Amino acid sequence: MKKAKLALKTEALQQTTIQVGSATVGGADLFIVGGPCAVENREQMDAVATRLVAAPVQALRGGVYKPRTSPYDFQGLGLEGLEILAAVRDRSGLPVITEVMAISQIEEIATYADGLQVGSRNMQNFDLLKALGQTTKPVLLKRGLAATLEEFVMAAEYILSHGNPNVILCERGIRSFDPYTRNVLDLGAVVALKQITHLPVLVDPSHAAGKSELVAGLSRAAIAAGADGLLVECHPEPEKSVSDARQALSLDEMVALVESLRPIAAAVQRTMPVAAEIVPQLSLA
Amino acid sequence: MKKAKLALKTEALQQTTIQVGSATVGGADLFIVGGPCAVENREQMDAVATRLVAAPVQALRGGVYKPRTSPYDFQGLGLEGLEILAAVRDRSGLPVITEVMAISQIEEIATYADGLQVGSRNMQNFDLLKALGQTTKPVLLKRGLAATLEEFVMAAEYILSHGNPNVILCERGIRSFDPYTRNVLDLGAVVALKQITHLPVLVDPSHAAGKSELVAGLSRAAIAAGADGLLVECHPEPEKSVSDARQALSLDEMVALVESLRPIAAAVQRTMPVAAEIVPQLSLA
Amino acid sequence: MKKAKLALKTEALQQTTIQVGSATVGGADLFIVGGPCAVENREQMDAVATRLVAAPVQALRGGVYKPRTSPYDFQGLGLEGLEILAAVRDRSGLPVITEVMAISQIEEIATYADGLQVGSRNMQNFDLLKALGQTTKPVLLKRGLAATLEEFVMAAEYILSHGNPNVILCERGIRSFDPYTRNVLDLGAVVALKQITHLPVLVDPSHAAGKSELVAGLSRAAIAAGADGLLVECHPEPEKSVSDARQALSLDEMVALVESLRPIAAAVQRTMPVAAEIVPQLSLA
Amino acid sequence: MKKAKLALKTEALQQTTIQVGSATVGGADLFIVGGPCAVENREQMDAVATRLVAAPVQALRGGVYKPRTSPYDFQGLGLEGLEILAAVRDRSGLPVITEVMAISQIEEIATYADGLQVGSRNMQNFDLLKALGQTTKPVLLKRGLAATLEEFVMAAEYILSHGNPNVILCERGIRSFDPYTRNVLDLGAVVALKQITHLPVLVDPSHAAGKSELVAGLSRAAIAAGADGLLVECHPEPEKSVSDARQALSLDEMVALVESLRPIAAAVQRTMPVAAEIVPQLSLA
Repeated sequence: MKKAKLALKTEALQQTTIQVGSATVGGADLFIVGGPCAVENREQMDAVATRLVAAPVQALRGGVYKPRTSPYDFQGLGLEGLEILAAVRDRSGLPVITEVMAISQIEEIATYADGLQVGSRNMQNFDLLKALGQTTKPVLLKRGLAATLEEFVMAAEYILSHGNPNVILCERGIRSFDPYTRNVLDLGAVVALKQITHLPVLVDPSHAAGKSELVAGLSRAAIAAGADGLLVECHPEPEKSVSDARQALSLDEMVALVESLRPIAAAVQRTMPVAAEIVPQLSLA
Repeated sequence: MKKAKLALKTEALQQTTIQVGSATVGGADLFIVGGPCAVENREQMDAVATRLVAAPVQALRGGVYKPRTSPYDFQGLGLEGLEILAAVRDRSGLPVITEVMAISQIEEIATYADGLQVGSRNMQNFDLLKALGQTTKPVLLKRGLAATLEEFVMAAEYILSHGNPNVILCERGIRSFDPYTRNVLDLGAVVALKQITHLPVLVDPSHAAGKSELVAGLSRAAIAAGADGLLVECHPEPEKSVSDARQALSLDEMVALVESLRPIAAAVQRTMPVAAEIVPQLSLA
Repeated sequence: MKKAKLALKTEALQQTTIQVGSATVGGADLFIVGGPCAVENREQMDAVATRLVAAPVQALRGGVYKPRTSPYDFQGLGLEGLEILAAVRDRSGLPVITEVMAISQIEEIATYADGLQVGSRNMQNFDLLKALGQTTKPVLLKRGLAATLEEFVMAAEYILSHGNPNVILCERGIRSFDPYTRNVLDLGAVVALKQITHLPVLVDPSHAAGKSELVAGLSRAAIAAGADGLLVECHPEPEKSVSDARQALSLDEMVALVESLRPIAAAVQRTMPVAAEIVPQLSLA
Repeated sequence: MKKAKLALKTEALQQTTIQVGSATVGGADLFIVGGPCAVENREQMDAVATRLVAAPVQALRGGVYKPRTSPYDFQGLGLEGLEILAAVRDRSGLPVITEVMAISQIEEIATYADGLQVGSRNMQNFDLLKALGQTTKPVLLKRGLAATLEEFVMAAEYILSHGNPNVILCERGIRSFDPYTRNVLDLGAVVALKQITHLPVLVDPSHAAGKSELVAGLSRAAIAAGADGLLVECHPEPEKSVSDARQALSLDEMVALVESLRPIAAAVQRTMPVAAEIVPQLSLA
């Protein structure tokens, strides 16, 4: 990590907090983000928001530009999806995060979303990182499937060194040999990153596990390891999800997961908002 | 896992508990094992036992036959080490676990130790597994560095099918690409194994991390993931350890780690003995 | 591979040949590409071209936009480097290939270069692939460090399905656990790709090996495995290379390597041009 | 490799040749070994020997003690299989190699076989290695699925340092992420090992590929990379093989493979016996 200048902890800067809409990442409160792999329609996102705002989660996620292995697979709703996200955000009060895949999408997405996600496949798309460095929106940078911690931190450094201090790291599993899980969640990386860098570190247990029944256990482990929050896939009807159906939690499971995190959070001196605190902010129709 | 007959959960058998000396593995109580990579001398093990019995830990570990990459490296104290282990066990009341590398060592080690460890390199040493199946001593089976979960469970099945029901699984990190950590601790495997098998599942964070500063965070994550206990390397003077010095905790760090696990254990409905309960058993000189 | 429509072999289309400048890739002749990791200056590239045109190689490579792990490392000469490449191409008659990292660079680079390389880090930069699908320039697509063959073929499918049939695949090593080599060259992938797809398949032994002394052996193996050609790093003074110095061949070594490939090529029914055939094309000052 | 004392090349010892029955490994002649995964019955092995002696291959392989993932799978014919191997050796003149899984098997197997194979799972079964160091039989040591080159060389060092100089290394693929191939054949390791050590280096393309259609291409690549020979699975009726059916060549394919290696061997200054030279040795009924 010797070449990183801005991402590393200093005596003065031990922990950065980043504002994503109305929520804060990197403070005492955990930052739990829930939502589907892809924004499919308004009803889906309304159902998600209505349940999750009461969990409560701190933000919603949903892809509108989808990086798919095949060019013939569903590529996301695009602008229509952004409008859905913004509408749901306005009604629920929950900030929304969505993936940006290209420089040309930054301005549009930044207009609608509160946080811009860079997916694993683009972790070293350096021109995209540089362009995101010229915005002020929070960037949620996912670790590449075979990225070393040094490469991950240096990818953040690309954004930081181009002017945007609002970088949130996200461990989401690395590629390995066992087909039982989709990827291997590397919580040693989370422990290490929390020692190396002042940036907030989230964990996406859903993509790592690839199986919904493993998500709750990994979520609890991630918080115990010191993660600042989670990115969890959930869907009103997981079996009907247009993508990654096998790993999405139902909304009931998501709400139960959030609840089960409370004693873990307390055990590592973290706090979690209770629903009562934020329900007044809602104006759901 | 379709071929496993004995290791898998059934409706009737959800969780096996295994007796290791005076301690129980797989019950509500966590099973925390501490000790050095290698038994070096009596003073070292006495120092370890004296501190850890009050932590408290539930068992001691220490290698006397060491699987070393180089034939020219220290290969362990052998019989002398076993005598030290037994003496320390007798004085502290703590059961002792040590590695068995060959069929010819089983009888001797079983005379002295309360648990027999099979190391990663021997996870598919099938003749050793079969021979251990003919003993009744608890076997702590470590996952191979590149073993799939199916291979791991089937290795346990070798022991079980040859007659020994006392098998404890141990995840200790898999080999991967990032030199920052020695191995990647696969806690998704722990969550999965707790769903698949009725056997107790421990975690060795020390060999996975390879760096002592990562051990506490990974230990807390392992317990939150549902592990039944831990195997942690510690040493009175880590910097003087004859092997794996970089990953061993000091005894102070070990005691602090045990204490920090209490709220995590409680958060996942597990219990941990307090020192007071076991101190009366001691008769340290 | 079930979803690929355009990249797979059909009874009618067993092998595509692609024109890169004056050279053909995918025919009986091997396509050997040599050159430095980065274009540094005119003298360097002239020295490379002068030696390699007589080897002969069929094309030159050299990065002008460099994907570097650190934002503080040399990022390439940019336009100046393109001008050098074009000048050297004009003098030597050898087509030039260079990496494109962003959609905004495509037009400029396509003006100067004969082939556009997509690096490993951008193999799933889908918007870049789509944009390259709208050009007609040959695209040399490198396999990602942890890309499955299915993902690799589907990445090519992105380019093909957007209109550009000129895709050349390049295996360059995958990430693994042994620090002895930088990456692991996956020649099983080359054998498989030659069976699956009609696209030409090259091999980059330099990035895989990471050590110049391993390059010749891996080059011969690649040709024997059925590769349509090679991409080899070489430099007039490897020890002074601004990047990847450890893996670059000297020009003498490069010439010797080409010569050593002749009997291997013949053994697998491939041909290699001799210098005499192409020297007349030259007009080196 | 700094700790290896006996396995490394010295100025005086550049290449060891090892006698396996009537054949020599490590000399100018390639050493091609063919045969089934498991010895099933006399007819099978007779069919194999009759065809392969005319190919010609230099030795036969066939497992009689089989390391199987499941304790419920076929574990090999044991002594009966050894008797079949010896009978086939006596009739064909071809030396036979078979796997040893336990110290207790060494004496018996050494009575019947010309070479003792240590499988990947036992590469670091150090007590087995030490015991094999006290024999004089050639030991064919396969690389572990996740073994570094240093660990591989040091495993050989265990055998060498205990007194047996006859160690043959065998690269057989390492574990990786792509399910398309069973393992990834690491020919960079072969190139490196030929530079590091004076021991002969074979390649097993069958276990690496896991698919018979990839074996010929990888075999040619292995020889071009500098391997001293091959270990190839073949079977009179591959689809009826009791294990690893998907990767075994038919005998016709095996004979064709051997023939296709001749020009590659010549290209790297290696020789291959022609059938005529060895047929007189035969006394097949």
